[in-house]
Amino acid sequence: MRVVVPFSTDRPKTRLAEVLTPDERREFAEAMLADVLDALDAVDRDLDVTVLATDSVDVDAPVVVDDRPLTTAVNDCLDSVPTAVVMADLAIATPDALSDLLDSAADLAIAAGLGGGTNAFLARNSTFHVDYHGASYRDHLEIADEAELSVREVDSRLLAVDIDEPEDLAEVLLHGDGAALDWLVDAGFELDVGGGRVEVVRE
Amino acid sequence: MRVVVPFSTDRPKTRLAEVLTPDERREFAEAMLADVLDALDAVDRDLDVTVLATDSVDVDAPVVVDDRPLTTAVNDCLDSVPTAVVMADLAIATPDALSDLLDSAADLAIAAGLGGGTNAFLARNSTFHVDYHGASYRDHLEIADEAELSVREVDSRLLAVDIDEPEDLAEVLLHGDGAALDWLVDAGFELDVGGGRVEVVRE
Repeated sequence: MRVVVPFSTDRPKTRLAEVLTPDERREFAEAMLADVLDALDAVDRDLDVTVLATDSVDVDAPVVVDDRPLTTAVNDCLDSVPTAVVMADLAIATPDALSDLLDSAADLAIAAGLGGGTNAFLARNSTFHVDYHGASYRDHLEIADEAELSVREVDSRLLAVDIDEPEDLAEVLLHGDGAALDWLVDAGFELDVGGGRVEVVRE
Repeated sequence: MRVVVPFSTDRPKTRLAEVLTPDERREFAEAMLADVLDALDAVDRDLDVTVLATDSVDVDAPVVVDDRPLTTAVNDCLDSVPTAVVMADLAIATPDALSDLLDSAADLAIAAGLGGGTNAFLARNSTFHVDYHGASYRDHLEIADEAELSVREVDSRLLAVDIDEPEDLAEVLLHGDGAALDWLVDAGFELDVGGGRVEVVRE
């Protein structure tokens, strides 16, 4: 099965600008990508994983460079199915959580991100197409509904957490165990377990 | 099976103070509690659901009033097992997500909240006890590990989303379908699908 991991090399993770410099954001984004690729590698299935990057990137997987907008580039990939698309910032995704999605026999298996995005999906019917603008999860359910596709909504916290905002870093510190966690710890980030929801501080 | 839903009547949801008045926070907290009880009611199992409240509350379930700290009150409930504890602010929890937890045969089935809390668990061994201070999910895994309990970590976005902060309201607007959603819409909240992660605005 083909799995595509889109990755933006052009100013990645701008919403982390409050806590990371541009160079740090790029390093951290690459660490998260490495974690996603590792998790896919540990899935007990024959996967053909490609990184769909906006420019060249040094990573342990075949890279296809496509600098068109995400929606256009992904829709081109969906001409052949089955194809799964897994975002590169799912820093706490596990092989089990990914397997649950990849094992689905539905026309569309789809995992929501926090805030209404689409973090991962597996399309088995080539009439499905994406539109990543705005709250894409609802739009994607609607697209599938209009095409009368069978849909499995995959309910996973580990796939729902994408790392966009500074407060998301807490999830990596709490639940991560790979390159992204190591990178954050090396950069001086730690949990502040004061009261209520934990927070992230940098030394 | 016994299910306990802790509910604080004393200044509930203080972290929503930026967007809701004290009266509104209480109304909204009660709407979320009603949704959690509805979801439990729709689980295909014989459940004995009790609200464990810090003071009397008008709700469609038996209420036990216990004004001691949460950890103490819940630990008293765990003297008899099986007992499940489900937080009252899981406004998008579904019967399916709850069933997945309640169907577990492990000594402890546990679902993390965003930010490291424990949103729901089912204890089948009375040696398990809670400590809700700080990042309780990790602490609870450690308590179970020390007691050599079998553990099932339930990976669910629908159980991970607890509504504490203003940005959490987006999840209710995106995925809710009960009293909490109705309350927010009546109060003028709506999604702002500008760019990136969606935001919540109040008219």
